Amino acid sequence: MDSLTSHVSIRKFKNEPVPEELISQLLISGIRASTTGNMQWYSIIVTSEPVLKAELAKLHYNQSAAVTAPVIITFCADIYRFSQWCVINNAKPGYDNFISFFNAAVDAILVAQNFCIAAENAGLGICYLGTVTYNAADIVKLLVLPEMVVPVASVALGWPVNIPELTDRLPLDVVIHNNRYKVYTSEEISKAYKEKENLDSSRNFVRENNKERLAQVFTDIRYNKKDNEYFSARFLDAIRSQGFDI
Amino acid sequence: MDSLTSHVSIRKFKNEPVPEELISQLLISGIRASTTGNMQWYSIIVTSEPVLKAELAKLHYNQSAAVTAPVIITFCADIYRFSQWCVINNAKPGYDNFISFFNAAVDAILVAQNFCIAAENAGLGICYLGTVTYNAADIVKLLVLPEMVVPVASVALGWPVNIPELTDRLPLDVVIHNNRYKVYTSEEISKAYKEKENLDSSRNFVRENNKERLAQVFTDIRYNKKDNEYFSARFLDAIRSQGFDI
Repeated sequence: MDSLTSHVSIRKFKNEPVPEELISQLLISGIRASTTGNMQWYSIIVTSEPVLKAELAKLHYNQSAAVTAPVIITFCADIYRFSQWCVINNAKPGYDNFISFFNAAVDAILVAQNFCIAAENAGLGICYLGTVTYNAADIVKLLVLPEMVVPVASVALGWPVNIPELTDRLPLDVVIHNNRYKVYTSEEISKAYKEKENLDSSRNFVRENNKERLAQVFTDIRYNKKDNEYFSARFLDAIRSQGFDI
Repeated sequence: MDSLTSHVSIRKFKNEPVPEELISQLLISGIRASTTGNMQWYSIIVTSEPVLKAELAKLHYNQSAAVTAPVIITFCADIYRFSQWCVINNAKPGYDNFISFFNAAVDAILVAQNFCIAAENAGLGICYLGTVTYNAADIVKLLVLPEMVVPVASVALGWPVNIPELTDRLPLDVVIHNNRYKVYTSEEISKAYKEKENLDSSRNFVRENNKERLAQVFTDIRYNKKDNEYFSARFLDAIRSQGFDI
Protein backbone atom coordinates (compact mmCIF):
# COMPACT_ATOMS: atom_id res chain seq x y z
CA MET A 1 0.00 0.00 0.00
CA ASP A 2 1.90 3.01 -1.33
CA SER A 3 0.40 5.63 0.94
CA LEU A 4 1.73 3.74 3.96
CA THR A 5 5.33 3.46 2.82
CA SER A 6 5.51 6.92 1.24
CA HIS A 7 4.38 8.98 4.22
CA VAL A 8 6.19 12.25 4.83
CA SER A 9 5.03 15.07 7.06
CA ILE A 10 3.96 18.13 5.07
CA ARG A 11 4.84 21.45 6.68
CA LYS A 12 3.77 23.85 3.93
CA PHE A 13 0.34 23.76 2.33
CA LYS A 14 -1.22 25.48 -0.67
CA ASN A 15 -3.65 28.29 0.01
CA GLU A 16 -6.58 26.13 -1.07
CA PRO A 17 -9.45 24.80 1.02
CA VAL A 18 -10.17 21.11 1.57
CA PRO A 19 -13.84 20.44 0.78
CA GLU A 20 -15.86 19.59 3.88
CA GLU A 21 -17.43 16.71 1.99
CA LEU A 22 -14.00 15.19 1.32
CA ILE A 23 -13.02 15.45 4.98
CA SER A 24 -16.24 13.68 5.98
CA GLN A 25 -15.56 10.95 3.46
CA LEU A 26 -12.05 10.43 4.85
CA LEU A 27 -13.41 10.37 8.37
CA ILE A 28 -15.69 7.49 7.38
CA SER A 29 -12.44 5.53 7.02
CA GLY A 30 -11.24 7.07 10.27
CA ILE A 31 -14.07 5.77 12.43
CA ARG A 32 -13.77 2.20 11.10
CA ALA A 33 -10.61 1.89 13.23
CA SER A 34 -10.65 -0.50 16.19
CA THR A 35 -12.12 1.01 19.34
CA THR A 36 -12.19 -0.38 22.89
CA GLY A 37 -15.46 -2.23 23.44
CA ASN A 38 -16.82 -0.41 20.39
CA MET A 39 -17.46 2.55 22.69
CA GLN A 40 -15.88 5.15 20.38
CA TRP A 41 -14.40 7.23 23.15
CA TYR A 42 -13.31 10.09 20.89
CA SER A 43 -14.44 13.27 19.21
CA ILE A 44 -13.03 14.92 16.12
CA ILE A 45 -12.93 18.72 15.91
CA VAL A 46 -12.52 20.02 12.36
CA THR A 47 -11.40 23.64 12.55
CA SER A 48 -11.30 25.64 9.33
CA GLU A 49 -13.01 28.93 10.23
CA PRO A 50 -10.06 31.29 9.53
CA VAL A 51 -10.03 33.39 12.71
CA LEU A 52 -10.47 30.38 15.00
CA LYS A 53 -7.96 28.32 13.01
CA ALA A 54 -5.41 31.14 13.41
CA GLU A 55 -6.02 31.13 17.18
CA LEU A 56 -5.52 27.38 17.22
CA ALA A 57 -2.33 27.69 15.16
CA LYS A 58 -1.02 30.11 17.80
CA LEU A 59 -1.42 27.40 20.45
CA HIS A 60 0.75 25.25 18.19
CA TYR A 61 3.41 27.99 18.31
CA ASN A 62 2.52 29.15 14.81
CA GLN A 63 4.59 26.37 13.29
CA SER A 64 4.48 26.44 9.50
CA ALA A 65 2.25 23.36 9.15
CA ALA A 66 -0.36 24.83 11.50
CA VAL A 67 -0.27 28.30 9.92
CA THR A 68 -0.41 27.26 6.28
CA ALA A 69 -2.89 24.38 6.63
CA PRO A 70 -6.48 25.34 5.76
CA VAL A 71 -7.71 22.90 8.39
CA ILE A 72 -6.51 21.66 11.76
CA ILE A 73 -8.18 18.53 13.07
CA THR A 74 -8.06 17.93 16.80
CA PHE A 75 -8.64 14.32 17.83
CA CYS A 76 -9.84 14.16 21.41
CA ALA A 77 -10.18 11.42 23.98
CA ASP A 78 -13.89 11.87 24.77
CA ILE A 79 -15.72 10.04 27.54
CA TYR A 80 -18.18 12.92 27.95
CA ARG A 81 -20.62 11.76 25.28
CA PHE A 82 -20.58 8.16 26.49
CA SER A 83 -21.02 9.27 30.11
CA GLN A 84 -23.99 11.44 29.15
CA TRP A 85 -25.54 8.43 27.48
CA CYS A 86 -24.99 6.41 30.68
CA VAL A 87 -26.54 9.09 32.88
CA ILE A 88 -29.74 9.39 30.86
CA ASN A 89 -30.00 5.59 30.94
CA ASN A 90 -29.78 5.30 34.70
CA ALA A 91 -26.29 3.82 34.43
CA LYS A 92 -23.44 5.15 36.58
CA PRO A 93 -20.27 5.92 34.56
CA GLY A 94 -17.00 5.04 36.31
CA TYR A 95 -14.56 6.46 33.81
CA ASP A 96 -12.74 9.29 35.61
CA ASN A 97 -9.62 7.15 35.94
CA PHE A 98 -6.29 6.55 34.23
CA ILE A 99 -7.09 3.37 32.33
CA SER A 100 -10.23 4.93 30.84
CA PHE A 101 -8.32 8.04 29.83
CA PHE A 102 -5.64 5.86 28.26
CA ASN A 103 -8.16 3.73 26.38
CA ALA A 104 -9.88 6.85 25.10
CA ALA A 105 -6.55 8.31 23.99
CA VAL A 106 -5.73 5.09 22.11
CA ASP A 107 -9.17 5.19 20.47
CA ALA A 108 -8.58 8.77 19.33
CA ILE A 109 -5.10 8.06 18.00
CA LEU A 110 -6.26 5.04 16.01
CA VAL A 111 -8.94 7.16 14.35
CA ALA A 112 -6.39 9.89 13.67
CA GLN A 113 -3.99 7.51 11.97
CA ASN A 114 -6.70 5.87 9.85
CA PHE A 115 -7.79 9.33 8.80
CA CYS A 116 -4.24 10.40 7.94
CA ILE A 117 -3.69 7.35 5.77
CA ALA A 118 -6.97 7.94 3.95
CA ALA A 119 -6.05 11.61 3.49
CA GLU A 120 -2.65 10.82 2.04
CA ASN A 121 -4.23 8.27 -0.23
CA ALA A 122 -6.44 11.09 -1.57
CA GLY A 123 -3.41 13.25 -2.35
CA LEU A 124 -3.65 15.40 0.75
CA GLY A 125 -0.74 16.06 3.09
CA ILE A 126 -0.73 15.83 6.86
CA CYS A 127 1.46 16.79 9.76
CA TYR A 128 0.93 15.70 13.36
CA LEU A 129 1.36 18.65 15.70
CA GLY A 130 3.06 17.21 18.77
CA THR A 131 2.43 20.54 20.48
CA VAL A 132 -1.16 19.43 21.19
CA THR A 133 -0.14 18.14 24.61
CA TYR A 134 1.94 21.25 25.46
CA ASN A 135 -0.99 23.62 25.44
CA ALA A 136 -3.83 21.17 26.02
CA ALA A 137 -5.55 23.38 28.60
CA ASP A 138 -5.65 26.35 26.21
CA ILE A 139 -6.92 24.14 23.40
CA VAL A 140 -9.65 22.92 25.77
CA LYS A 141 -10.71 26.55 26.30
CA LEU A 142 -10.51 27.58 22.66
CA LEU A 143 -12.45 24.60 21.33
CA VAL A 144 -14.84 24.64 24.32
CA LEU A 145 -14.18 21.02 25.25
CA PRO A 146 -16.40 19.83 28.10
CA GLU A 147 -15.21 17.72 31.05
CA MET A 148 -13.92 14.23 30.18
CA VAL A 149 -12.67 15.49 26.80
CA VAL A 150 -8.90 15.92 26.26
CA PRO A 151 -7.11 16.73 22.99
CA VAL A 152 -4.49 14.04 22.27
CA ALA A 153 -3.60 14.34 18.58
CA SER A 154 -3.71 17.33 16.23
CA VAL A 155 -3.32 17.03 12.51
CA ALA A 156 -2.64 19.87 10.07
CA LEU A 157 -4.34 19.01 6.78
CA GLY A 158 -4.11 20.47 3.28
CA TRP A 159 -2.75 20.21 -0.23
CA PRO A 160 1.05 19.92 -0.21
CA VAL A 161 3.15 22.60 -1.90
CA ASN A 162 5.67 19.86 -2.58
CA ILE A 163 6.52 16.40 -1.35
CA PRO A 164 9.78 16.30 0.61
CA GLU A 165 12.05 13.26 0.55
CA LEU A 166 11.42 10.37 2.89
CA THR A 167 13.03 10.88 6.27
CA ASP A 168 15.41 8.36 7.82
CA ARG A 169 14.38 5.44 10.02
CA LEU A 170 16.45 3.09 12.13
CA PRO A 171 17.20 -0.27 10.47
CA LEU A 172 14.09 -2.45 10.83
CA ASP A 173 15.86 -5.19 12.80
CA VAL A 174 16.78 -2.66 15.46
CA VAL A 175 13.16 -1.97 16.42
CA ILE A 176 11.90 -5.56 16.04
CA HIS A 177 12.54 -8.18 18.70
CA ASN A 178 11.93 -11.88 18.15
CA ASN A 179 9.75 -13.46 20.81
CA ARG A 180 11.27 -11.46 23.72
CA TYR A 181 13.08 -8.15 24.12
CA LYS A 182 16.74 -8.42 23.21
CA VAL A 183 18.79 -5.90 25.17
CA TYR A 184 21.26 -4.01 22.97
CA THR A 185 25.00 -3.95 23.49
CA SER A 186 26.71 -0.54 23.27
CA GLU A 187 28.14 -1.60 19.94
CA GLU A 188 24.70 -2.45 18.62
CA ILE A 189 23.34 0.92 19.74
CA SER A 190 26.22 2.79 18.10
CA LYS A 191 25.73 0.86 14.89
CA ALA A 192 21.95 1.39 14.94
CA TYR A 193 22.23 5.18 15.04
CA LYS A 194 25.31 5.47 12.81
CA GLU A 195 23.44 6.16 9.57
CA LYS A 196 21.26 8.79 11.27
CA GLU A 197 24.29 10.50 12.78
CA ASN A 198 26.01 10.60 9.41
CA LEU A 199 23.18 12.31 7.52
CA ASP A 200 24.01 15.80 6.26
CA SER A 201 20.93 17.12 8.01
CA SER A 202 22.13 15.64 11.30
CA ARG A 203 25.62 17.05 10.90
CA ASN A 204 24.17 20.49 10.17
CA PHE A 205 21.93 20.14 13.18
CA VAL A 206 24.91 19.43 15.42
CA ARG A 207 26.89 22.33 14.00
CA GLU A 208 24.05 24.88 14.13
CA ASN A 209 23.43 24.02 17.75
CA ASN A 210 27.09 24.10 18.73
CA LYS A 211 27.03 20.54 20.01
CA GLU A 212 29.50 17.71 19.67
CA ARG A 213 27.07 14.83 19.14
CA LEU A 214 23.61 14.46 17.63
CA ALA A 215 22.16 12.93 20.80
CA GLN A 216 23.04 16.15 22.65
CA VAL A 217 20.87 18.17 20.28
CA PHE A 218 17.93 16.09 21.53
CA THR A 219 18.77 16.04 25.24
CA ASP A 220 20.03 19.62 25.56
CA ILE A 221 17.79 21.47 23.11
CA ARG A 222 14.91 19.81 21.29
CA TYR A 223 13.58 17.50 24.01
CA ASN A 224 15.39 18.59 27.14
CA LYS A 225 14.62 17.46 30.67
CA LYS A 226 13.47 20.87 31.92
CA ASP A 227 10.91 21.35 29.14
CA ASN A 228 9.75 17.76 29.43
CA GLU A 229 9.10 18.18 33.14
CA TYR A 230 7.36 21.50 32.62
CA PHE A 231 5.08 20.13 29.91
CA SER A 232 4.46 16.90 31.84
CA ALA A 233 3.07 18.92 34.74
CA ARG A 234 1.00 21.09 32.39
CA PHE A 235 -0.47 18.16 30.47
CA LEU A 236 -1.27 16.27 33.68
CA ASP A 237 -2.95 19.41 35.05
CA ALA A 238 -5.01 19.72 31.89
CA ILE A 239 -6.12 16.08 32.08
CA ARG A 240 -7.01 16.43 35.77
CA SER A 241 -8.87 19.68 35.15
CA GLN A 242 -10.99 17.82 32.62
CA GLY A 243 -12.13 15.50 35.39
CA PHE A 244 -9.74 12.56 35.30
CA ASP A 245 -8.36 11.42 38.64
CA ILE A 246 -4.79 10.60 37.62
CA MET B 1 -8.99 2.43 0.44
CA ASP B 2 -10.93 -0.75 1.03
CA SER B 3 -8.86 -2.14 3.86
CA LEU B 4 -9.62 0.98 5.91
CA THR B 5 -13.37 0.88 5.57
CA SER B 6 -13.71 -2.89 5.79
CA HIS B 7 -11.87 -3.45 9.06
CA VAL B 8 -13.34 -5.99 11.44
CA SER B 9 -11.59 -7.55 14.41
CA ILE B 10 -10.82 -11.24 13.86
CA ARG B 11 -11.18 -13.42 16.92
CA LYS B 12 -10.57 -16.84 15.41
CA PHE B 13 -7.57 -17.67 13.25
CA LYS B 14 -6.58 -20.64 11.10
CA ASN B 15 -3.92 -22.96 12.44
CA GLU B 16 -1.38 -21.67 9.92
CA PRO B 17 1.78 -19.70 10.54
CA VAL B 18 2.41 -16.20 9.20
CA PRO B 19 5.80 -16.16 7.44
CA GLU B 20 8.38 -14.08 9.33
CA GLU B 21 9.37 -12.46 6.05
CA LEU B 22 5.80 -11.24 5.50
CA ILE B 23 5.63 -9.76 9.00
CA SER B 24 8.88 -7.90 8.40
CA GLN B 25 7.55 -6.57 5.12
CA LEU B 26 4.39 -5.31 6.82
CA LEU B 27 6.45 -3.71 9.56
CA ILE B 28 8.32 -1.71 6.92
CA SER B 29 4.97 0.03 6.39
CA GLY B 30 4.57 0.21 10.15
CA ILE B 31 7.70 2.18 10.85
CA ARG B 32 6.96 4.78 8.15
CA ALA B 33 4.30 6.18 10.50
CA SER B 34 4.84 9.63 12.00
CA THR B 35 7.01 9.65 15.10
CA THR B 36 7.74 12.48 17.54
CA GLY B 37 10.95 14.22 16.49
CA ASN B 38 11.74 11.14 14.39
CA MET B 39 12.99 9.52 17.59
CA GLN B 40 11.10 6.23 17.09
CA TRP B 41 10.34 5.71 20.75
CA TYR B 42 8.96 2.21 20.31
CA SER B 43 9.87 -1.44 20.06
CA ILE B 44 7.93 -4.24 18.42
CA ILE B 45 7.98 -7.71 19.97
CA VAL B 46 6.90 -10.45 17.57
CA THR B 47 6.05 -13.54 19.63
CA SER B 48 5.37 -16.78 17.74
CA GLU B 49 7.40 -19.39 19.67
CA PRO B 50 4.50 -21.65 20.73
CA VAL B 51 5.23 -22.07 24.46
CA LEU B 52 5.98 -18.39 24.98
CA LYS B 53 3.01 -17.34 22.86
CA ALA B 54 0.75 -19.53 25.00
CA GLU B 55 2.14 -17.85 28.14
CA LEU B 56 1.47 -14.48 26.59
CA ALA B 57 -2.06 -15.50 25.61
CA LYS B 58 -2.65 -16.41 29.27
CA LEU B 59 -1.87 -12.80 30.25
CA HIS B 60 -4.57 -11.80 27.77
CA TYR B 61 -7.01 -14.05 29.67
CA ASN B 62 -6.81 -16.72 26.97
CA GLN B 63 -9.30 -14.83 24.84
CA SER B 64 -9.96 -16.61 21.56
CA ALA B 65 -8.01 -14.14 19.39
CA ALA B 66 -4.90 -14.52 21.55
CA VAL B 67 -5.16 -18.31 21.78
CA THR B 68 -5.81 -19.05 18.11
CA ALA B 69 -3.47 -16.43 16.59
CA PRO B 70 -0.11 -17.88 15.52
CA VAL B 71 1.53 -14.57 16.43
CA ILE B 72 1.00 -11.89 19.06
CA ILE B 73 2.75 -8.60 18.42
CA THR B 74 3.37 -6.35 21.42
CA PHE B 75 3.97 -2.71 20.55
CA CYS B 76 5.88 -1.01 23.34
CA ALA B 77 6.60 2.58 24.24
CA ASP B 78 10.41 2.36 24.35
CA ILE B 79 12.70 5.14 25.54
CA TYR B 80 15.33 2.64 26.68
CA ARG B 81 17.10 2.34 23.32
CA PHE B 82 17.13 6.10 22.76
CA SER B 83 18.37 6.72 26.31
CA GLN B 84 21.18 4.20 25.85
CA TRP B 85 22.19 6.06 22.71
CA CYS B 86 22.21 9.32 24.67
CA VAL B 87 24.33 7.86 27.46
CA ILE B 88 27.03 6.51 25.17
CA ASN B 89 27.11 9.93 23.47
CA ASN B 90 27.66 11.89 26.64
CA ALA B 91 24.13 13.27 26.48
CA LYS B 92 21.87 13.20 29.54
CA PRO B 93 18.40 11.76 28.81
CA GLY B 94 15.53 13.50 30.60
CA TYR B 95 12.69 11.24 29.61
CA ASP B 96 11.44 9.63 32.81
CA ASN B 97 8.34 11.84 32.79
CA PHE B 98 4.70 11.77 31.73
CA ILE B 99 4.93 13.69 28.47
CA SER B 100 7.76 11.47 27.24
CA PHE B 101 5.84 8.33 28.17
CA PHE B 102 2.78 9.70 26.38
CA ASN B 103 4.75 10.61 23.25
CA ALA B 104 6.32 7.16 23.20
CA ALA B 105 2.90 5.54 23.60
CA VAL B 106 1.55 7.59 20.69
CA ASP B 107 4.56 6.59 18.59
CA ALA B 108 3.94 2.91 19.35
CA ILE B 109 0.22 3.12 18.60
CA LEU B 110 0.79 4.86 15.26
CA VAL B 111 3.17 2.08 14.22
CA ALA B 112 0.67 -0.53 15.41
CA GLN B 113 -2.14 0.94 13.36
CA ASN B 114 -0.03 1.31 10.22
CA PHE B 115 0.99 -2.30 10.65
CA CYS B 116 -2.60 -3.46 11.13
CA ILE B 117 -3.75 -1.71 7.97
CA ALA B 118 -0.89 -3.22 5.98
CA ALA B 119 -1.69 -6.65 7.43
CA GLU B 120 -5.38 -6.42 6.54
CA ASN B 121 -4.42 -5.26 3.09
CA ALA B 122 -2.41 -8.48 2.74
CA GLY B 123 -5.42 -10.62 3.67
CA LEU B 124 -4.42 -11.16 7.29
CA GLY B 125 -6.73 -10.54 10.21
CA ILE B 126 -5.96 -8.63 13.38
CA CYS B 127 -7.45 -8.04 16.78
CA TYR B 128 -6.24 -5.47 19.30
CA LEU B 129 -6.02 -7.03 22.75
CA GLY B 130 -7.11 -4.27 25.12
CA THR B 131 -5.97 -6.49 27.96
CA VAL B 132 -2.38 -5.36 27.33
CA THR B 133 -2.71 -2.61 29.94
CA TYR B 134 -4.41 -4.87 32.49
CA ASN B 135 -1.44 -7.15 32.95
CA ALA B 136 1.33 -4.84 31.75
CA ALA B 137 3.66 -5.74 34.64
CA ASP B 138 3.40 -9.45 33.88
CA ILE B 139 3.95 -8.83 30.18
CA VAL B 140 7.05 -6.83 31.12
CA LYS B 141 8.38 -9.85 33.00
CA LEU B 142 7.47 -12.42 30.36
CA LEU B 143 8.95 -10.47 27.45
CA VAL B 144 11.91 -9.27 29.55
CA LEU B 145 11.28 -5.60 28.85
CA PRO B 146 13.98 -3.36 30.33
CA GLU B 147 13.31 -0.07 32.17
CA MET B 148 11.70 2.70 30.12
CA VAL B 149 9.83 0.11 28.02
CA VAL B 150 6.07 -0.34 28.54
CA PRO B 151 3.67 -2.45 26.43
CA VAL B 152 0.84 -0.25 25.15
CA ALA B 153 -0.80 -2.14 22.27
CA SER B 154 -1.03 -5.87 21.57
CA VAL B 155 -2.20 -7.27 18.27
CA ALA B 156 -3.23 -10.86 17.58
CA LEU B 157 -2.30 -11.69 13.99
CA GLY B 158 -3.19 -14.54 11.68
CA TRP B 159 -5.26 -15.84 8.79
CA PRO B 160 -8.98 -15.35 9.49
CA VAL B 161 -11.25 -18.40 9.66
CA ASN B 162 -13.99 -16.15 8.37
CA ILE B 163 -14.74 -12.46 8.04
CA PRO B 164 -17.52 -11.33 10.37
CA GLU B 165 -19.90 -8.54 9.42
CA LEU B 166 -18.96 -4.93 10.00
CA THR B 167 -19.79 -3.77 13.51
CA ASP B 168 -21.92 -0.71 14.21
CA ARG B 169 -20.59 2.82 14.58
CA LEU B 170 -22.31 5.99 15.78
CA PRO B 171 -23.54 8.25 12.97
CA LEU B 172 -20.55 10.20 11.64
CA ASP B 173 -22.01 13.63 12.47
CA VAL B 174 -22.21 12.61 16.12
CA VAL B 175 -18.45 12.25 16.50
CA ILE B 176 -17.46 15.21 14.27
CA HIS B 177 -17.67 18.79 15.55
CA ASN B 178 -17.39 21.79 13.27
CA ASN B 179 -14.78 24.30 14.39
CA ARG B 180 -15.55 23.91 18.14
CA TYR B 181 -17.08 21.25 20.36
CA LYS B 182 -20.84 21.25 20.21
CA VAL B 183 -22.31 20.00 23.48
CA TYR B 184 -25.09 17.46 22.96
CA THR B 185 -28.62 17.81 24.23
CA SER B 186 -30.17 14.78 25.93
CA GLU B 187 -32.33 14.28 22.86
CA GLU B 188 -29.27 14.27 20.61
CA ILE B 189 -27.55 11.71 22.84
CA SER B 190 -30.60 9.44 22.86
CA LYS B 191 -30.89 9.69 19.10
CA ALA B 192 -27.17 9.05 18.59
CA TYR B 193 -27.23 5.74 20.46
CA LYS B 194 -30.68 4.61 19.31
CA GLU B 195 -29.51 2.44 16.43
CA LYS B 196 -26.89 0.76 18.63
CA GLU B 197 -29.46 0.07 21.35
CA ASN B 198 -31.84 -1.46 18.83
CA LEU B 199 -29.38 -3.98 17.38
CA ASP B 200 -30.29 -7.61 18.03
CA SER B 201 -26.84 -8.16 19.52
CA SER B 202 -27.40 -5.28 21.95
CA ARG B 203 -30.83 -6.53 22.96
CA ASN B 204 -29.38 -9.99 23.58
CA PHE B 205 -26.58 -8.43 25.57
CA VAL B 206 -29.07 -6.63 27.81
CA ARG B 207 -31.17 -9.76 28.29
CA GLU B 208 -28.24 -12.10 28.99
CA ASN B 209 -26.91 -9.73 31.61
CA ASN B 210 -30.28 -9.16 33.26
CA LYS B 211 -30.13 -5.43 32.73
CA GLU B 212 -32.75 -2.92 31.67
CA ARG B 213 -30.65 -0.75 29.40
CA LEU B 214 -27.58 -1.28 27.19
CA ALA B 215 -25.58 1.44 28.96
CA GLN B 216 -25.89 -0.54 32.20
CA VAL B 217 -24.15 -3.51 30.61
CA PHE B 218 -21.13 -1.25 30.12
CA THR B 219 -21.17 0.53 33.50
CA ASP B 220 -22.14 -2.46 35.66
CA ILE B 221 -20.40 -5.32 33.90
CA ARG B 222 -18.04 -4.83 30.97
CA TYR B 223 -16.27 -1.61 32.01
CA ASN B 224 -17.33 -1.07 35.58
CA LYS B 225 -15.89 1.49 37.96
CA LYS B 226 -14.34 -1.03 40.35
CA ASP B 227 -12.40 -2.86 37.62
CA ASN B 228 -11.39 0.43 36.01
CA GLU B 229 -9.95 1.70 39.27
CA TYR B 230 -8.20 -1.58 39.97
CA PHE B 231 -6.62 -1.71 36.51
CA SER B 232 -5.76 2.01 36.59
CA ALA B 233 -3.70 1.46 39.73
CA ARG B 234 -2.07 -1.64 38.24
CA PHE B 235 -1.18 0.02 34.94
CA LEU B 236 0.19 3.12 36.70
CA ASP B 237 2.27 0.86 38.97
CA ALA B 238 3.65 -0.96 35.94
CA ILE B 239 4.57 2.31 34.23
CA ARG B 240 6.23 3.63 37.38
CA SER B 241 8.09 0.36 37.94
CA GLN B 242 9.54 0.76 34.47
CA GLY B 243 11.11 4.03 35.57
CA PHE B 244 8.60 6.71 34.66
CA ASP B 245 7.88 9.33 37.31
CA ILE B 246 4.14 9.77 36.79
